[in-house]
This record gives sequence, structure tokens and C-alpha cells, in this order.
Amino acid sequence: MVTPVRIASWDESAAALIDVASGRKPADVVVRSGRWVNVYSGEIIAETDIAIIAGRFAYVGPSAQHAIGPDTKIIEANGRYLMPGLCDAHMHVESGMVTATEFARAVIPHGTTSMFVDPHEIANVLGLDGVRLMHDEAAGLPVNMFVQVPGCVPSAPGLENAGASIGPADVAEAMRWPNIVGLGEMMNFPGVAASDPNMLGEIAATQRAGKTVGGHYASPDLGLPFHAYVAGGPADDHEGTRIEDAIARVRQGMRAMLRLGSAWYDVASQIKAVTERGLDPRNFILCTDDCHSGTLVNDGHMNRVVRHAIAQGLKPIIAIQMATLNTAQHFGMERELGAIAPGRRADLILTSDLATLPIELVMARGQVLAENGKLAVDIAPYAYPKNSRDTVHLGRATTGDDFVIPAPGNMASVEANVIGVIENQAPTQALVRRLPCANGRVEADVSLDVCHIAVVERHRATGRIANAFVSGFGYEKPCAIASTVAHDSHHVIVVGTSRADMAQAVNRLAEVGGGICMVSEGRELALVELPIAGLMSDERAEIVAVKAERVMQAMRACGCTLNNAFMQHSLLALVVIPELRISDIGLVDVRTFQPIPVLLPEATSSEAV
Amino acid sequence: MVTPVRIASWDESAAALIDVASGRKPADVVVRSGRWVNVYSGEIIAETDIAIIAGRFAYVGPSAQHAIGPDTKIIEANGRYLMPGLCDAHMHVESGMVTATEFARAVIPHGTTSMFVDPHEIANVLGLDGVRLMHDEAAGLPVNMFVQVPGCVPSAPGLENAGASIGPADVAEAMRWPNIVGLGEMMNFPGVAASDPNMLGEIAATQRAGKTVGGHYASPDLGLPFHAYVAGGPADDHEGTRIEDAIARVRQGMRAMLRLGSAWYDVASQIKAVTERGLDPRNFILCTDDCHSGTLVNDGHMNRVVRHAIAQGLKPIIAIQMATLNTAQHFGMERELGAIAPGRRADLILTSDLATLPIELVMARGQVLAENGKLAVDIAPYAYPKNSRDTVHLGRATTGDDFVIPAPGNMASVEANVIGVIENQAPTQALVRRLPCANGRVEADVSLDVCHIAVVERHRATGRIANAFVSGFGYEKPCAIASTVAHDSHHVIVVGTSRADMAQAVNRLAEVGGGICMVSEGRELALVELPIAGLMSDERAEIVAVKAERVMQAMRACGCTLNNAFMQHSLLALVVIPELRISDIGLVDVRTFQPIPVLLPEATSSEAV
Repeated sequence: MVTPVRIASWDESAAALIDVASGRKPADVVVRSGRWVNVYSGEIIAETDIAIIAGRFAYVGPSAQHAIGPDTKIIEANGRYLMPGLCDAHMHVESGMVTATEFARAVIPHGTTSMFVDPHEIANVLGLDGVRLMHDEAAGLPVNMFVQVPGCVPSAPGLENAGASIGPADVAEAMRWPNIVGLGEMMNFPGVAASDPNMLGEIAATQRAGKTVGGHYASPDLGLPFHAYVAGGPADDHEGTRIEDAIARVRQGMRAMLRLGSAWYDVASQIKAVTERGLDPRNFILCTDDCHSGTLVNDGHMNRVVRHAIAQGLKPIIAIQMATLNTAQHFGMERELGAIAPGRRADLILTSDLATLPIELVMARGQVLAENGKLAVDIAPYAYPKNSRDTVHLGRATTGDDFVIPAPGNMASVEANVIGVIENQAPTQALVRRLPCANGRVEADVSLDVCHIAVVERHRATGRIANAFVSGFGYEKPCAIASTVAHDSHHVIVVGTSRADMAQAVNRLAEVGGGICMVSEGRELALVELPIAGLMSDERAEIVAVKAERVMQAMRACGCTLNNAFMQHSLLALVVIPELRISDIGLVDVRTFQPIPVLLPEATSSEAV
Repeated sequence: MVTPVRIASWDESAAALIDVASGRKPADVVVRSGRWVNVYSGEIIAETDIAIIAGRFAYVGPSAQHAIGPDTKIIEANGRYLMPGLCDAHMHVESGMVTATEFARAVIPHGTTSMFVDPHEIANVLGLDGVRLMHDEAAGLPVNMFVQVPGCVPSAPGLENAGASIGPADVAEAMRWPNIVGLGEMMNFPGVAASDPNMLGEIAATQRAGKTVGGHYASPDLGLPFHAYVAGGPADDHEGTRIEDAIARVRQGMRAMLRLGSAWYDVASQIKAVTERGLDPRNFILCTDDCHSGTLVNDGHMNRVVRHAIAQGLKPIIAIQMATLNTAQHFGMERELGAIAPGRRADLILTSDLATLPIELVMARGQVLAENGKLAVDIAPYAYPKNSRDTVHLGRATTGDDFVIPAPGNMASVEANVIGVIENQAPTQALVRRLPCANGRVEADVSLDVCHIAVVERHRATGRIANAFVSGFGYEKPCAIASTVAHDSHHVIVVGTSRADMAQAVNRLAEVGGGICMVSEGRELALVELPIAGLMSDERAEIVAVKAERVMQAMRACGCTLNNAFMQHSLLALVVIPELRISDIGLVDVRTFQPIPVLLPEATSSEAV
């Protein structure tokens, strides 16, 4: 097990740092003869030694021979690059479907040593208690994980029954916790632009605490609504996708966060603001936002993003600044991390090549945590309390009949509002489809690619189930997939062509405490158990990645050919993205923010055959 | 009179800012059709409008027509540049020998709207109360003046009787005042490198408050003592003079502050780190450190520094960043000032040319404060309390005999340790000169350019006077110049060829409450009254500049040809700069930090003629 976890503050260690720098005291660790990637000056400085004590850099310069004592651990860099540990400026641990500890275990070998985490999902299930759990878990890690307080919980008050809610008073309280760096992404951009007092209250509580307000302006409109949002105070934004989005944000004094997640590819287009338009790079920051376990296990984390940015033509030193110093400065932590310089936490990477970025050694707080892609230490799991593992409350087992939509009168077919999934896009289409009726029930129609969708309330055991129809998944077999990952309120969302399979999948999730389950004709094709808040596994990322891959295989086996098929599934209850979604209170037209019926009224007047 | 002085915080004004940005509410001021000097992106953006409300920028972008109401004041930029107001990152108000208010009056027409002030001198006279006075005066100004807590008061404990002292507990207390941004320049660099607990205690109090530790490493040694100093926590340094100084500081994660003061010319050499060596410019900051009233009145302030930096080959936008955004970021105030961007204080300059930088209009917090080099508003003087105006306590009037150095035995001449002033340098030389004796007194010798120097204790009316000799001023006539500006403890320092004139000059200062007085053969040649703490006038900068110029003329008229003659005079009691200085306890050898006698011991054994 890696110890100690807590790092003393710079001022507590100042005398030791000075004594090591001046040669009066031996260092804990000396790294010898590397090429210093200096993110302050923008230089690469050969023949640099580093002396470390108390988890911090004490000396960086030519020969640290004076800091070597009999017990000093010596690491030979042998001319390799000495890089600051990488920072992920905006991310959600829950996207990996693992705990914060397991997330850290997965990304440390990739060189990530600092994460700025918005626990938006667990907050929607457990409220401020969930944020505190993530906060406390983060504080015990051997790397730096800072937490933002999610400000939009629930994301759509009035349009759903939320699992939890967070308001200005909660935000103010959380700002006093030691590991909190700011407000999570302020997704309610129409609210900010409308001077909504709750949103402004949360921003104010954050600003008064001297912390950073995360932004999220997910609209292509760069006119007055955008300007109004900026005037409200968000300090960064990772929702830009086009070069003009990045330029507009930087000009207005926001940091443009460019993301490369498992399903986000927003770096290539926006980085041209620097490589082609010549904007000052200091206000650009790299992040991942959402990474699935499979990405972490197979592809990397921030090293993948930095490599990708370099591949777009960015100078390596500038790409590295965007994942180190720029991030630290943005969060007011420049004196604490983001650079190899005296006083900062001794978080560093040894690499032989700045473009391909092989991560050969990773150190955080002066301890070697990984070598050549493998963890070099063990990290104790965090003991999530019982209440965080008991969050799927259906009230009763569901049956196939719970997913019936009764046909009005004696109709042969009816017209229904149907959610239309669009390949590779988050917005949906509001479709109308004529669906067959049988035995007084409106049926799904595989020939039209229309199947059942339902949201099953799971926080308060109300037994409430909202039913509707969805098109676009391409399921051809009798099947159903249910998930307690159902943004943002994370009820159970279930999609299927078979009502019996739907019930079985939902009931199975209740049994295992949440997760993802796919069933076909009564046979369980895939299961990812996510017992923590119904969102996170307590298993290793490698295992979760394999199980998640089985879900994708099962979806494909049932006929679904969408990219990011599960993400599409899990976003269908997010009643803030147009056009049509479903919450536990029913279908919602997100163009008007109004509930609408599943069946069209005129359907009732058209006679049966 | 300009009103109101207080500016509401961003969060207090957020709703108004959003409403103006989105067109729901009219702006107080709209600036129309300028070229936006965008310090975030590094671009110049034509056809930009600005809307201001509540003293802050609400909207910056194309047409602000939507923010214009019947009462909106409209300023036509007519294609001129819209620049953020300039910031002075490190300066001492007292160097202008005027109050903070008068300093602001003098620099506002030059475009300075933010000052980071270290009230080191008044602190040496009035202690923490003096810092509080400056703090409170600063808070009432219509521009931004932030205060650092001086950490080295007195600068040489044990080698002088100080006027006041400040320790870690004082620093911790002051960190709670609203207008404090950090610790003033940590001049005791040997103390930091030696892990002195008082110095580390002050740094710790500052770091714990999340504020900025000012640095001052005044040594050319960039070896281990420098590295040890950096490890102690200072975050910036303005004492560099050579390109290697700037490079070393930036590499170590400090901000290199490059100064152009009345007598400091440290920009040209160090800016080559950017213009020739290509270092990332974001960690370079411009400042003045010390400006005399004459410079402010005749030459300018930060506009002079920016112009000078551009003249050295720096791109205008980068020079402007070094006096705006870089400074704001360094002090953690980026969301508050240093850029024309929504939410920030509406501090701006209109100029027709970015290289020559004519300052055509200056606005702070949305109010036009100056136009074409003239103040457009009046600013009320600050009422300094009586105790701050009653600081010259000699105990009794001095006479010529007070400045006698008795000759040992019946000597015709004696060898004496003599302070040797060096042209254009702050360090002095430790000289030995054989001086004539007469009537049992050691006499000055104009032919050797040796005259009397004395420090007269003035804080506690002890009547203590320390006498010695100084060489290098070139005084040829019977004369004396006395000053209560006598760094750092600010006793009275008097230099003269005539003991009677010395007494008269000193007594005159006691009479007027402090200042500078030059007398020759009983006639007063020049007088600058500095009644506030003996350091600052309560008159206008223009008047002080004229009076100070008369001092320089008087010094020249008496034979002194030194550049910065008065600065040399005022620094002779600063017993931290080698080699030889004088404090109220006598001569001090600053190479060994030990008092030494005026007369050499062997002199006593050489027989009289």
C-alpha cells in the first residue's frame, strides 16, 4: 500500500525544502540527469537534476549532488524528459463506471496525476452526501483529485422527480470543504442568461469563496445568449466544438477547454485557433470530460489527449502546458502543481519522446506510482458506506404489463410521438409514427425500428413508470436493455422490443443494486453490476471494461449498430437536450420544456378497422 | 468629486451585467466602435463595442446597440484602440514623496488604474498602523490600489533601533484586511535561505491566506542561495538586472518583474529573454518599483514602461499583457481586472497608437477619470490622522557640537573608516582615509571629498546621534543636507561639510515634521516638507516635484555631481547593503553585519606632530 497519502503544505515543509535546496539536508529522492520540460519558460533544459523532500520539489537545476545523502533514493533519468504530471481539467469519474480510487489506478500509469472532477452523477442520486463521498475518497488518493460541486442537480426541475437536489446553500456549505475547487459545469445556460436567482446564487457562493465557476454552454449561438452567459460568471467551457467556439470563449476571458473523451472529439477542430489563427495558447486547456473504462484500459487518458493535440500540429511544449500549467493556473493552483518547480508537489513523468509520449515512470508527491504502464504500488479501496450501495428502490418487482401502453378505444393503429435517436449526436428528433394496436395495447414495431422505452422511478420506491416509444436503435430480436445510468436523475431507463424482457432486465438491476443488464428472450446477455449509487462498480477498471464491452456486443447482437449505443441509451432521460426525451413523469418536448402525451389526440378519433 | 468609490462585487452585480449583455436593461456607458486589444487571445479585434454597468464590463463584442437606453452615456472610440487600464505590479507610493491619493492623481492620466503597493517606508515609521493607513486610503480611491504587508520591518534588527517592527502575527492579522494582496518584497534573502523562522512565519501566514509572497533577491549569485530562496516561497522578483536573472527566475516558477523606475533601468537587458531567447512571455511582468514625483509629472508611469518595452522590440500586445493580464493573474485577480472582458472592472484606456501610446482617455470602474493627460474628476484627499503627522521626535534641538567626533589624544590626524559612495550603484565601499584633527576634533576634509555624516534618532526622542564620515558626494562648500527619508528606519540622516549647517538642517526638519532640507552657511537652499510620517507630502505631485528638483539643484550648487544624488544620500543608513553604512547605533560593516568604530585603533598609537 502506498503511504503516506496526506501531503504537508508548502509552508509546513518550507524549512525542509530550503535545507535540501541549499545542501544542509539530504533529499528523499533525487532524479538525475534529465531534460527538464519547463512549462514556465517554454524551454527544454538539458542536464537537469531534481531533489525532492516531503513530497515536493525542493531543487531543480544543475547537479543535485549536494542533496544526496546515504538514504536518498536515486532515479536515473539518463537524458529522458522530465515532464510535470498531467492534469485533467474537467472530467466525471462516473463515466468510467468505477470508483474514484479505481479511476486513479487506471489513469496513473498513463501519467495523470491531477484531476478536476465534477461528481454530477452521484450527486443526482445521493445529493450533497454523494459529493462528500467523492470528496473524501479523492482526499485519500496518492494523486491529486479535486472536486467541483455540481450546480445543476436536478438538471430539469419540474420535468422529472429528482433523486436529489443541490441549491445555493449547499454550494456555499461545500465551498468550505478542503478538497473543493469550484462549481461544477453550469449547464443551465438558459437559466444564467435569464438571471435565474438559483443559478446566480450558486455562482455567487463560488465566487465569494474565491473558487472557479465551471461552464457548459452547449449551444452554437454565439450571439447575445452567449454574451449573457459569460457575464454571469462561468470561467471556462468545454462544450465548444468548432474553431469559432474556442475563439469566442477565449476572447471573452474564459478558458477554452478542448476535450477528447471516449466519444468527444473536440480538440482537432478547435486547436486550429492556436495552430492556424495564432491565438495565445495560455487560455486553452485539454480535458477528457467522459472516459469509459475501455478507453482508460486500452487507449490512455490525458496522455492520449496530449498526443492527439501534438498530432494536430501543436508544439509538444505547448500541448503539455495545456495539460499542466494552464490547468493549474485556471484553478488558482499554480503554486501547488502543474510544473516541475520548487515548492510544487513532486508529480512527474519520465518519457523518452515528447511526441509519442511513452509514459515510462510516474511519480506523484515524490513517490513512484507507476513504471512502464504498470502500477508500482497498491492503493486501498475506499469503503463506500451502505447507504451509497442501496439506491435502487423500485417498491416492487416489475412485470411485462407495467410497460403496456393502452390503446384508446378499439383502434387497429394509433399515431404516437416517438423519440428519434440520431447517430453520433446527442439531440434527438421528435418523430410521429403510426403504431399497431393489439388486444387494447399499442405495440412496438420492429419493421419501423420502433421499440418500447420506459423510465422506472428508483429513488423513492413510488412504483411510478413512464412508458413511450423510441426509434433508431435497430433492435430486431425480442430483447431489452435496462440501466440505472440514466442521465441525469438516474432512474432506471429500459428500452426493449419485449415487455417481458424489459421487466426481467429491470428486476435484475434491482437485485444487484444497479447497473446495466441486457436480456433477450429471458436469457441474460450481459450484466454490469454498478452497486455504488447504481453508477459505479466496485471492481477493477479492466473487469468493468470487459463487462461493458459485453453490453456493446449484446446490443449489436440484437441488431443495434449505433456508435456509442449505450451512451445514446443512457442519455434518453436527459430532459434538457432537444427535441424529445422521457423522464419519470413521461414524454417531454425539450423544445418547449413541456410534457406531451405519447399518443396523438387525433388518433382517438380515427376509427378502428 | 468622483463618486461612488466602492464597486460592488461581480456576484452582486451579476444580474445587472447579464441583463445588459442580453439587452434587457440599458448600460450606464457604451463605448462605440474601437479596436479591442484582447490580452486573452492576443488579437486586435476591430469594430468592437463595450457596454458597462455597475462599474464593470457587461458586454464586449460587435454592436452594443441593444444596450443603449435614453440615459446611456456614449463614448465614441472612432476606431481607436480599447486597452485595459495599466497595472503597476510592484511599487512604493512613498518614493513619490506624496500620499497614495496624490500618487493616484498623478498616474491616472498616464493610464495606470491598478497598483500593487508595498508601504514599506511608512511601515518602518508607523508599523502596522502605517500599513493600515495606506490600506484604508487605497480602499477609498477610484482606481485599484492593493496593498502588500511589508515583511522586513525593520530590515536590520540588532543593527539599528527601529521605528517599528512587523512580525508573523502582524502579517497574519493584516491578511484578513480586505485590500491586502500579499506579503511585500521579502528582502531578507539570506534569512530565507537560512530558514529563519520569522521570515518563514511571515511567508507561511501569507500562503495560508492564499495570497502572493513578493520576492526580492538582490544578489547576482544564481547558485544554491538563489535556489534555497526560491524553495522558501517568494513568487516573484523585481531585483534582477541581467538576462540570466530573468531566465533563472522564470524557469524556477517565479514571475520575473522587470522594472523601469526613476533610477532603475532593468527592462532592456532582461526583456531579451523574450525577444531574443524566445521564453514564454506570460511570466514576465512590468513594474516601476520607485518613481519620483518628477518622473510622474514629466515622464509618465506604466505607460512609460510599456512604451520602453515596445521600443526594445517587444510586440505591443505582449508588452501590454505584461502590464495588464500577467499582473492580474499573478495576484489571483484575473477575474477582477487586467482585461476588457465581461465581469471585470471597467478600467480602460483609449489610445490612437499602440507603440507611442498616447493616453487619450482613462476610465476606471466605468467612470472617465482623465482625458488627454488631464484629470477629469477631483479626488478627495485622505485625512491622515494627527499621529501620522507627528513623527519627528528629536528630544531637543541639535547643535553643531552634536556632530563632533573627538580626536583621541593630541593627534594631528587619524585614520578613519569612511563610507565610500559609488556612482550609479547602491553598494558602498569601505574606505579608510587619514583625516586632520583640530582642537581635539576629527575634521572633515573637502580636499579628500570626505564630509560628516550622522544619523539622528527621531522615533523615540532618545537624543541618540551616531557620527561618521562619508566620501563621494563632492561637496565643496560649507553645507549640509538632512532628510527624514533615510531607508529603512527613516531616522534623520544628515551629511555636511559644516556642523552648524548640519544642526540647522536637522532642526528645520523637526520644525516642519520631516522632509528634506539643504542649508549652506546658515541659508536654507531647499526644503521639501514631508509631514506625513516624515516621508510624504500633503501637497500636489507637481509642487513636490518642483521642491525636490530644488534639492537636486542645491546639491549640485554645493558641488555634488552624482546621478540620483538624493537617493544615494537616503540609502546610506540601509544597513543591509554592503559594504559600509551608518545606523543610529553607529557605523556598520555590512560585509560582516557587525558594528565597527569610526576611528581605526592604530590611530591612537601614532604620535602627534
